[in-house]
Amino acid sequence: MAKDEVLRELREFVRERDWAQFHSPENLAKSISIEAGELLECFQWNANADRSEVQDELADVLTYCFLLADTLGLDSDQVVLDKLARTREKYPVEKAKGRSTKYDAYED
Amino acid sequence: MAKDEVLRELREFVRERDWAQFHSPENLAKSISIEAGELLECFQWNANADRSEVQDELADVLTYCFLLADTLGLDSDQVVLDKLARTREKYPVEKAKGRSTKYDAYED
Amino acid sequence: MAKDEVLRELREFVRERDWAQFHSPENLAKSISIEAGELLECFQWNANADRSEVQDELADVLTYCFLLADTLGLDSDQVVLDKLARTREKYPVEKAKGRSTKYDAYED
Amino acid sequence: MAKDEVLRELREFVRERDWAQFHSPENLAKSISIEAGELLECFQWNANADRSEVQDELADVLTYCFLLADTLGLDSDQVVLDKLARTREKYPVEKAKGRSTKYDAYED
Repeated sequence: MAKDEVLRELREFVRERDWAQFHSPENLAKSISIEAGELLECFQWNANADRSEVQDELADVLTYCFLLADTLGLDSDQVVLDKLARTREKYPVEKAKGRSTKYDAYED
Repeated sequence: MAKDEVLRELREFVRERDWAQFHSPENLAKSISIEAGELLECFQWNANADRSEVQDELADVLTYCFLLADTLGLDSDQVVLDKLARTREKYPVEKAKGRSTKYDAYED
Repeated sequence: MAKDEVLRELREFVRERDWAQFHSPENLAKSISIEAGELLECFQWNANADRSEVQDELADVLTYCFLLADTLGLDSDQVVLDKLARTREKYPVEKAKGRSTKYDAYED
Repeated sequence: MAKDEVLRELREFVRERDWAQFHSPENLAKSISIEAGELLECFQWNANADRSEVQDELADVLTYCFLLADTLGLDSDQVVLDKLARTREKYPVEKAKGRSTKYDAYED
C-alpha cells in the first residue's frame, strides 16, 4: 500500500529529473554511507538527538536504500524478512536472550 | 501488507531475545552506519559487486532503519514520502534535470 | 622521523604487492569509510570497547588516510595543522569554550 | 617532528576550549565515521573530486584519528607500523601480488 506509493513516487521523482544515470548500485551504496554519517551526526556528542533532525536524516538513508533495492529488482520488505529468517536460525532464542556480548544478530 | 508483516516479525524477534534494552536511538544510528560500511565494502575495489552479498548487507541496513523508525514511532514509508515532498520543492524539475553538479537532492 | 618511516614502509608494502592500481582516491575514500565503520563497531552496543580491537581498527583507518594523502601528494601532518589554523579562526576560544551545542569545530 | 607539533597544537586547541569533556573514545569513533562520510561525499557521484575539498575532509578524519590515538595513549605512526608488520605476515608478496580478489590486506 504505502510501499507501492513510495516506489511510484520515488521512480517518478528520479525519472522527471533524469537522474537514473547517476544511480549505479555503487553510487547508491556510497550515498547510503554518506547519509548514515549525517544521521549519526545527530548523536555525535550525546545520546539525545533532535527528533525532527533524526527523522530527516533517516528519510535520506531510507530513500537511497529503497532506490538501491529497486535498482536491483529487490523488494525491500522481502529482503528484510528473508534475512530475518536466516538470523533466527543463527541466533536461536535460548542462546541469544538478553545477551549483548557478541551481539551481531543481523550480520552473517 | 508486507510492511505490517515486517514490523510484526521484527518486533517479535526483538521481544523474544529481550534486545530492546540495546536499541536506543543512538545505538541504532551507530548500527546503521556500521552496516552501511559493510554494504559499501561490496564495492570497495570495483563498481561490480556480488548481488547476493549486496542484498544481504542492504537487509542489515534496512533492518536497523526500520527498528529506529519504529523506536521513534515513525512510519518509514511515510517518512520517505514526507521528505520527498520537501525535496520536490527544493529541486524543481526545471532546475535539476540531468544535472549532477551539486546533486544533493535528498539533503537539506 | 617515525612519519618518514611510516611512508617508506607503506609505499614499499604497496609496491611489492603491485597494489597501487587499486588505490584511486575514490577507492581509498571508500576504504576509509569502511574501516571507520569497523572502528565504530567496537562501540556498537556500549561506550566501552576492547582497547586492542580499537587500536587495530584505528590502524586501518589511519593506513588508508596516509595512503590517500600520499596519493594526492599531501603531508598528513601538515594537512591537520593547516585545517587547525582555519578552525582556530572560526571557533575563537571566547565563543567556543566548554560548549558542545553545535560543536562542529572541525567542519567547514 | 611535524608529528610532535601536531599533537602539541591539537592538545592546546582542545585545552583552550575545554573540549576534552566531549572526547570520549566512543564520541571520537563516531566523529571519525561522520567525517569519513563527508570525505566520501566528495566522490558521491563520480570518481573525480575537488582536491581542496578532499584535503579539507581528510584533515577532519585525521584530526579525530589523532585525538583518539592520543586519548588512548597510542602513537598513531607506531600503530600503523605495528599493523603493517602483522599484515605482511598475513599477505605475503607471493600470494597477494596484483590480486584484488578478496583484497582485504589491512583487515584482520
